[in-house]
Amino acid sequence: MRLSDEEVALVLNSLTGWKLDGKFIVKKYRFQEFLKGIAFVNDIAQLSEEKNHHPFISIDYKMVTLKITSWHAGGLTDLDISLAKQYDTLYEKYN
Amino acid sequence: MRLSDEEVALVLNSLTGWKLDGKFIVKKYRFQEFLKGIAFVNDIAQLSEEKNHHPFISIDYKMVTLKITSWHAGGLTDLDISLAKQYDTLYEKYN
Repeated sequence: MRLSDEEVALVLNSLTGWKLDGKFIVKKYRFQEFLKGIAFVNDIAQLSEEKNHHPFISIDYKMVTLKITSWHAGGLTDLDISLAKQYDTLYEKYN
Repeated sequence: MRLSDEEVALVLNSLTGWKLDGKFIVKKYRFQEFLKGIAFVNDIAQLSEEKNHHPFISIDYKMVTLKITSWHAGGLTDLDISLAKQYDTLYEKYN
């Protein structure tokens, strides 16, 4: 079920670096090496297939941006928030 | 050395699917499966490191967009055109 604007605002307070962008939440992840960013993208891709929920991914040299929403719900759901947290956990091993 | 607008126009005629976008050339590649697109991104990443010339990469589910320019030259160079052709060759194995 789609989260209300109030629920989204509340949950964003508990996340680090995630910002609201229309119906999406977005975060930029920085890496010390280009290929580490690519390894992270592979981790994200694997998780996305498992959950059948795919974020937009963009790679600007050593910066990877992830942008996620739930199309079927017309906005953000618990799944997006849960995945955002899992992306952050995957990122930890690159620091 | 930066290619002239005339040279770029001429070269784009010889490429398939590449379009001019300001100082960049851009192409969208479509895949039958999400993970094939990711495998292609890994090929592109490897080549980019070898050449030390990195395109912008974006992944929208089964569509991968590559966007390239030469920052040091302030526009497109022979290297961009050569890489565009190599990207197309890498793509062939996914069809």
